Amino acid sequence: MSDDKKAAGPGLESLEPTLRETARRLEGKDQETLPRACSTELILPDKDVVVEILRDLRKLLFPGYFGSEMVRLAKSGDHVMHRLQKLAERLLVQVEIAFAFEHCRQGGDSEVLCPDGFVEPATKVVTEFLSFIPVLREQIMKDIDATFHGDPAANSREEVIFSYPGAFAVFVFRVANNLFRQGVPFLPRMMTEYAHSRTGIDISAGATIGEHFMIDHGTGVVIGETSIIGDYCKIYQGVTLGALSTRDGRALEHVKRHPTIGDRVTIYANATILGGDTVIGDGATIGGNAFIISSVEPGAKVSGLNGQDKG
Amino acid sequence: MSDDKKAAGPGLESLEPTLRETARRLEGKDQETLPRACSTELILPDKDVVVEILRDLRKLLFPGYFGSEMVRLAKSGDHVMHRLQKLAERLLVQVEIAFAFEHCRQGGDSEVLCPDGFVEPATKVVTEFLSFIPVLREQIMKDIDATFHGDPAANSREEVIFSYPGAFAVFVFRVANNLFRQGVPFLPRMMTEYAHSRTGIDISAGATIGEHFMIDHGTGVVIGETSIIGDYCKIYQGVTLGALSTRDGRALEHVKRHPTIGDRVTIYANATILGGDTVIGDGATIGGNAFIISSVEPGAKVSGLNGQDKG
Amino acid sequence: MSDDKKAAGPGLESLEPTLRETARRLEGKDQETLPRACSTELILPDKDVVVEILRDLRKLLFPGYFGSEMVRLAKSGDHVMHRLQKLAERLLVQVEIAFAFEHCRQGGDSEVLCPDGFVEPATKVVTEFLSFIPVLREQIMKDIDATFHGDPAANSREEVIFSYPGAFAVFVFRVANNLFRQGVPFLPRMMTEYAHSRTGIDISAGATIGEHFMIDHGTGVVIGETSIIGDYCKIYQGVTLGALSTRDGRALEHVKRHPTIGDRVTIYANATILGGDTVIGDGATIGGNAFIISSVEPGAKVSGLNGQDKG
Repeated sequence: MSDDKKAAGPGLESLEPTLRETARRLEGKDQETLPRACSTELILPDKDVVVEILRDLRKLLFPGYFGSEMVRLAKSGDHVMHRLQKLAERLLVQVEIAFAFEHCRQGGDSEVLCPDGFVEPATKVVTEFLSFIPVLREQIMKDIDATFHGDPAANSREEVIFSYPGAFAVFVFRVANNLFRQGVPFLPRMMTEYAHSRTGIDISAGATIGEHFMIDHGTGVVIGETSIIGDYCKIYQGVTLGALSTRDGRALEHVKRHPTIGDRVTIYANATILGGDTVIGDGATIGGNAFIISSVEPGAKVSGLNGQDKG
Repeated sequence: MSDDKKAAGPGLESLEPTLRETARRLEGKDQETLPRACSTELILPDKDVVVEILRDLRKLLFPGYFGSEMVRLAKSGDHVMHRLQKLAERLLVQVEIAFAFEHCRQGGDSEVLCPDGFVEPATKVVTEFLSFIPVLREQIMKDIDATFHGDPAANSREEVIFSYPGAFAVFVFRVANNLFRQGVPFLPRMMTEYAHSRTGIDISAGATIGEHFMIDHGTGVVIGETSIIGDYCKIYQGVTLGALSTRDGRALEHVKRHPTIGDRVTIYANATILGGDTVIGDGATIGGNAFIISSVEPGAKVSGLNGQDKG
Repeated sequence: MSDDKKAAGPGLESLEPTLRETARRLEGKDQETLPRACSTELILPDKDVVVEILRDLRKLLFPGYFGSEMVRLAKSGDHVMHRLQKLAERLLVQVEIAFAFEHCRQGGDSEVLCPDGFVEPATKVVTEFLSFIPVLREQIMKDIDATFHGDPAANSREEVIFSYPGAFAVFVFRVANNLFRQGVPFLPRMMTEYAHSRTGIDISAGATIGEHFMIDHGTGVVIGETSIIGDYCKIYQGVTLGALSTRDGRALEHVKRHPTIGDRVTIYANATILGGDTVIGDGATIGGNAFIISSVEPGAKVSGLNGQDKG
């Protein structure tokens, strides 16, 4: 870099006054414009560590699939125990920080409570999460099974595990959903947004999703916070399960705004289904590009062309 | 790797003639098929450094939110000054390279001018950019505010800063737009494509976007180069502000091809609005999946079902 | 981390019984629920290495464009030969592993054959791939040319190479397609899903795509496995070339399920074209948001508004 620096030298010197002026303006405005937390000395949840937790979990559930080293799998019991311990440690610290940060954000005393004061509730969360991991694996195996059977282009379950963004996004959702239901702030959304960034699939951590769930291709899928989805459902790219209107903003915070989908429903690409009172009955099929704002009978087939039942 | 290499050994040896032949063919064709710059000894803009600049800027504006180390925030004045200096240095070098590369690409003399000859214009750009940073922070705080108030699922402004892809994409757009307006080549597009890759939101660095702007979910959003968007607008996933036709290709380079959106307009998921003469009036609401190729009156509500005013 | 660990200490100790119980449950269920490969000591294809192969290839084809170090380009013949050799080595190992893993997955003897027994077929694949690289470069230069001429907002071919996600996704597709046609398992899909993750563009490695192909913006594009696309075609964001129904699941594995697109066809944003018998004639234009499930005459213009020919 020394050559570049030399080249940039004269330019940099002449920048000095502007640098000082900008620094002054940035510091002066801090107290007014930044959210409260930015101005305190809080520890914040760490996105990189949260991503590491998801990676560790995936390695634990699918040993050998996601390591970056080409080693023979030494999958002894101690190995699993060691990975679990590392995972629990990391998660515990992040959950403590998340609780403490939320507490201080709401005006709590940051001196006393951040973040050591939250060891107890965080331990409770992690204990419950650990007990959930074997259940999680069963759920994921069912999702993978559904994906393999649902996509003629899938060559094997192994390929689904390796490569399918839908299976990855649903895995992350199931992890985030457990923490969401336990009332952990920040971390669930950080997790689902990580999956969103990697897959284009945006599943709210608060959604309710049954077993054997499959999302194919997936880019552009949005599943809103109060959506309810049954078992054996299949959703394609660009499908939105959304709210009819968000005009009332924050007043809608705890209202059911998103649709309810029954069991064995297939929703083809780019269909939009809106509204908290909209119920798609068991076994219904929603065609590509359909725009649905009222309920659909069980077993009905709604065409993408005109939005009417052609069953 | 030594074991792998041994295993691959015999295979590799037999590849030797094909390797030589491929290398020969790649070298021979260089002068004909590659764009000019590939064949010279130019320094090119560095995508990794451009991404680092965006990260540094984000850390500067939201201290503590995006560090990968869990440290207490030491946010003294010197700290801000130090970060600004590092940012300015990096940006200066990349702007110089971008100017020089564009100059040479257009046939300029690469010996004399690359890239030290561009210290002066690059310094001017960076000076103006530094002065813009405090304004940028105010703009971003307004965007975050709009996002928090507009999404019932957002728990706090802090969560928006941490996790919302829309807020991130708009932040990157505002940075890139400043450089675009200053005539810097390459870097603005590298920045917006970085945001596009991470969020699925594709905002042209040349677009004009007002204050308090919010994009929710965002995957699939495309905002074209000559779009104009007013204040307090809200856009959902899959919305395209695009051109009616690109059949005339490069001849359209400086023509207004994309729509104009007034103030306080909400555009729901997957709506498509096309054409440089299309104006969406203040306070209008465009329903999900709507397909719009002509202007819409202020205050009108256009349904996604049939594209007609249901106001 | 020592401070954090101390803080977490009491929490961690109390987690011990749950950790042991979870480890026990994870180990006990292994044989039942995990796909076969997870329970053996196989070497698996390595996603990180596959991504490295794509990066190396891009650096080889566009010297200087994608390095992270700002060095003058030393593009001597030895340099190209050296890069090719490294690429061939890495690819050879991954192809061997992919063949061996697929063999064992189907019930083959893992002791004898994994992965050294596949040197010969893997060498054949890599030899053919090496011979393909110069052809690949010609194809990519044509795609870049098409993108530059097709987008009024593109400032130069260099900008397309640097920044356009469409050009990147098509590059990865052409690489993956070569391996797909040679019958390599796993790797083609790993490659296209990497591009999908970075660009939101999901092109099946099995698709057939002509020359001078351009995808603009691209987020949400899905091109199914049995699609056939002619020369000089242009596709925008959100376009799906998909199957009419996947209700029959795996029974459709070798059936042509996706449309055929002629030469010089433009398909605007968010259009959906479905079905293996659907043929879009040469020179046709498909409007934004159009929903097409039957063939379209050559030269026809199908509007996005009502799906009818307005030519």
